[in-house]
Amino acid sequence: MTQVTRGRLLIACPDQKGIVAAVAKFLFDLDANIAASDQYSTNVEGGTLFMRIEFDMANLPDRENELCDKFALVAEQYQMKWQYAPASRRKRMAIFVSKETHCLQELLWEWQSGQLHTDVAMVISNHDDARSLVEPLGVPFHHVPVTKDDKAAAESAQLALLGQDIDVIVLARYMQILSPAFLEHYPYKMINIHHSFLPAFIGRNPYQRAYDRGVKLIGATAHYVTAELDEGPIIEQEVHRVNHHYDAHALRITGRQVERAALARAVKWHLDDKVIVHENKTIVFA
Amino acid sequence: MTQVTRGRLLIACPDQKGIVAAVAKFLFDLDANIAASDQYSTNVEGGTLFMRIEFDMANLPDRENELCDKFALVAEQYQMKWQYAPASRRKRMAIFVSKETHCLQELLWEWQSGQLHTDVAMVISNHDDARSLVEPLGVPFHHVPVTKDDKAAAESAQLALLGQDIDVIVLARYMQILSPAFLEHYPYKMINIHHSFLPAFIGRNPYQRAYDRGVKLIGATAHYVTAELDEGPIIEQEVHRVNHHYDAHALRITGRQVERAALARAVKWHLDDKVIVHENKTIVFA
Amino acid sequence: MTQVTRGRLLIACPDQKGIVAAVAKFLFDLDANIAASDQYSTNVEGGTLFMRIEFDMANLPDRENELCDKFALVAEQYQMKWQYAPASRRKRMAIFVSKETHCLQELLWEWQSGQLHTDVAMVISNHDDARSLVEPLGVPFHHVPVTKDDKAAAESAQLALLGQDIDVIVLARYMQILSPAFLEHYPYKMINIHHSFLPAFIGRNPYQRAYDRGVKLIGATAHYVTAELDEGPIIEQEVHRVNHHYDAHALRITGRQVERAALARAVKWHLDDKVIVHENKTIVFA
Amino acid sequence: MTQVTRGRLLIACPDQKGIVAAVAKFLFDLDANIAASDQYSTNVEGGTLFMRIEFDMANLPDRENELCDKFALVAEQYQMKWQYAPASRRKRMAIFVSKETHCLQELLWEWQSGQLHTDVAMVISNHDDARSLVEPLGVPFHHVPVTKDDKAAAESAQLALLGQDIDVIVLARYMQILSPAFLEHYPYKMINIHHSFLPAFIGRNPYQRAYDRGVKLIGATAHYVTAELDEGPIIEQEVHRVNHHYDAHALRITGRQVERAALARAVKWHLDDKVIVHENKTIVFA
Repeated sequence: MTQVTRGRLLIACPDQKGIVAAVAKFLFDLDANIAASDQYSTNVEGGTLFMRIEFDMANLPDRENELCDKFALVAEQYQMKWQYAPASRRKRMAIFVSKETHCLQELLWEWQSGQLHTDVAMVISNHDDARSLVEPLGVPFHHVPVTKDDKAAAESAQLALLGQDIDVIVLARYMQILSPAFLEHYPYKMINIHHSFLPAFIGRNPYQRAYDRGVKLIGATAHYVTAELDEGPIIEQEVHRVNHHYDAHALRITGRQVERAALARAVKWHLDDKVIVHENKTIVFA
Repeated sequence: MTQVTRGRLLIACPDQKGIVAAVAKFLFDLDANIAASDQYSTNVEGGTLFMRIEFDMANLPDRENELCDKFALVAEQYQMKWQYAPASRRKRMAIFVSKETHCLQELLWEWQSGQLHTDVAMVISNHDDARSLVEPLGVPFHHVPVTKDDKAAAESAQLALLGQDIDVIVLARYMQILSPAFLEHYPYKMINIHHSFLPAFIGRNPYQRAYDRGVKLIGATAHYVTAELDEGPIIEQEVHRVNHHYDAHALRITGRQVERAALARAVKWHLDDKVIVHENKTIVFA
Repeated sequence: MTQVTRGRLLIACPDQKGIVAAVAKFLFDLDANIAASDQYSTNVEGGTLFMRIEFDMANLPDRENELCDKFALVAEQYQMKWQYAPASRRKRMAIFVSKETHCLQELLWEWQSGQLHTDVAMVISNHDDARSLVEPLGVPFHHVPVTKDDKAAAESAQLALLGQDIDVIVLARYMQILSPAFLEHYPYKMINIHHSFLPAFIGRNPYQRAYDRGVKLIGATAHYVTAELDEGPIIEQEVHRVNHHYDAHALRITGRQVERAALARAVKWHLDDKVIVHENKTIVFA
Repeated sequence: MTQVTRGRLLIACPDQKGIVAAVAKFLFDLDANIAASDQYSTNVEGGTLFMRIEFDMANLPDRENELCDKFALVAEQYQMKWQYAPASRRKRMAIFVSKETHCLQELLWEWQSGQLHTDVAMVISNHDDARSLVEPLGVPFHHVPVTKDDKAAAESAQLALLGQDIDVIVLARYMQILSPAFLEHYPYKMINIHHSFLPAFIGRNPYQRAYDRGVKLIGATAHYVTAELDEGPIIEQEVHRVNHHYDAHALRITGRQVERAALARAVKWHLDDKVIVHENKTIVFA
């Protein structure tokens, strides 16, 4: 159970003297206690500093406005890009899936066992196959078919279903490419699992191509979705050893475990506000 | 100590009934004892069968001609591509290196500790840096500078040094591209270590590009050299986890361990006749 | 879909000349085609030879008696311990579980997705928690409480439920110790997952003890159950890196992934007749 | 090249509000710039807080006394155990070795390639085998034989050679047990590599025992040496997958790579002041 007194600050700013002291003093003056702190600087001179701070503060829910107003002054002084997140507020998640359900199942499973601190608001699929996995859990399932000729209609329907309250979308083997217009609604809030070790095998049929190339390890990559296909910031990657006994089908079956593991970790880190995006890369404080 | 009575057969042929029986009977009739046997078929019907058999046979050195003549009949019957290798005969190896010596050192080290069953005949480099590592071990070191304008002259000099008796060439971070004409002398007998997880980051500066892409694992690939750059059959790959703390320099340093491990295994397997090349992929019986 | 024409032979015998030839000839004479063959000898002279052969043979279901009768003669000649298994016959599996259901779920999942070639005949638990996971799949669930004072009664009830037709029992985090009398019914047919890297942390509370010791990797071990606790032949082990951020609870949560992976692989190999037990160790032809 | 302006503080203290602020303010008031900061608390309420801070400060070499005197006041206020280390001061290292030299070689190699920030002051061995590896590098080699009957004499000789200026001793496969009296001179300053995944296979012949147990992964453990054999705080562990093909000898050969990797990382972290010992465990800020 996450305490309502726990808050998180994510910060990125030009590095200079006194930032840590300023942030620490700010929290101390509010009578908050730092529970965890991570910091990373690309370069002490002229680089960028990244911080993640978890703190406990009495009556936090009532004092969020005060906290943010006061921190805005600190942030201004140091040119910070920053974000405050109360640890106890669950992000609302939508999951997109196509026919292969292993990644969806892994997420639902981790969610049910309490490992993913989120509310699964809905599952959207261009097929109806996953309905029976989703509805028994009390999660709404929406079948939104996608046709080549009218992708825009499908996206409109999806956006209508998503509404205004979705914090994060996970593409759990959703095999349709979303338009830039759609993506703009969720900047660095959509996580995709690609079934290869990117940047190898960008695009279609990575397992067949991995087989054709004769690789000795197969991989999966969880990354934020950007307008360039499979080029968004990588959050997590995983690999598994294979050999000549594996045909393309066996690679695909084995790859499921790799995809599940990489995606589950990436989603968990995102939900726990452990990921900062910077120049198409991620700093993961995990 | 490898016994002089130990021999190896590597076989590839269209799969059909009776092949294993025929090979096993052939060895039994010669009073040979099968010590190890690996077999793999891409498809029982219409596929290709690969076999590696190690056997012990009394007086093998005196009976090699007999063995090969008789096996040629079996091979003809089953349309086999095959290769016989006496286990006790060390392959003669040449190592090419440029400025970075960690892969060279790993090979020399494994060789000295008895793990690589080979004679290191010479080391050739386009720089003089590695001389002091090589000559104290009694291994000839040849400095063959390579200039942009006269690569052909360098290759001629290299070929003259190599002579007729080199069985395998290892490119242990040799940073020059060899011409197709050179490669033709050593079909599937040259092993290169590429400092990325191929097919990601083919070509120059893979660590810088891995850094720019923000990958979470770095890799190395040992492969046979073919005319297409970094596209030859992969023998072994290895990866290591990294994070945002690693800049391009740190990736390069960490990558050394990965390169050393992947290359040493690939070279060992090749020396022990454990690798069969098929359609630009490898079957590794390890 | 496994073909009804596919059969498997598992063999262990004193190594000597001609065994492979004899087995291969035997199959050839029956007009069978060897599809896969693995062989391993502890020592060519005086050692033990292990073989696994998969073959295709027309009308196999009708010719099993003939096959076994004839092979018995070969086996006698070479003092073989051997086992024939038709690949298309699914083994009947019972799963035992207590309160933690992640390993059960992984098995059910892999089974449903077609990766485990088995019939799940029943799930038995000393708690009622898992019922809702099991019954919707059409698998019988039996709640057999175990009390300290009357373990024998519980085991009698379990044996009655199991009946005569169970081929393999998987202890998927079943936290009760079964008596030697029970075990005798299933020699090398019971697979347990132990939540540590055996032989470290034998017995109770391995995650707490791993935490107390400050290990940097946690592990799980899938092994056949024998009368000595956690000392049976190891089939598979897996590990995952951890650090000082992990308390005993976090180790337990993270360990679930490791347990699931190790157990699923071990069960799959057992079902596919890829495991031979020898002197409290396993030869796994995977 | 490590700058002379770079310093490090390692801190452990009871957790309470304001510690980070106090330390950050302390450095800010000295006009120092925090370059890296890691923090970990076992429990915000009543737990222990660990910090590692790297900072840059002009004229640091001339201001170390001032820094330490002033920090002592902060430390007193928060009941800190703490340690200051100038990053540019190389620790003086002695390496102990017996007959197997692979760990020694790895350390010397990493040292020569600039990866270990240390001065290798001497190598001490109970055998003479390693002399030829050590002396060409300009490192003194001392052969101190150890006899069963007079271990004390050997230890006296070793202590005399070590003198007063050794900061860290690495037991790089040194196969003699050192007495508690000896150990008292180097509390948490001696690092041993044990050739198993501790706590499995404590003591003698771990590879033989790993073979006898039939493990599927072999490991190595780098740990601080304490009076209880193989029970000191673990710094790093590594494993490698093996199978039934590996006899005890092959495990030993393969294990060398694992030992080298684990030891090299542990030594590097220790030299870079990244390890804090707490209750027989380590916090590693790496």
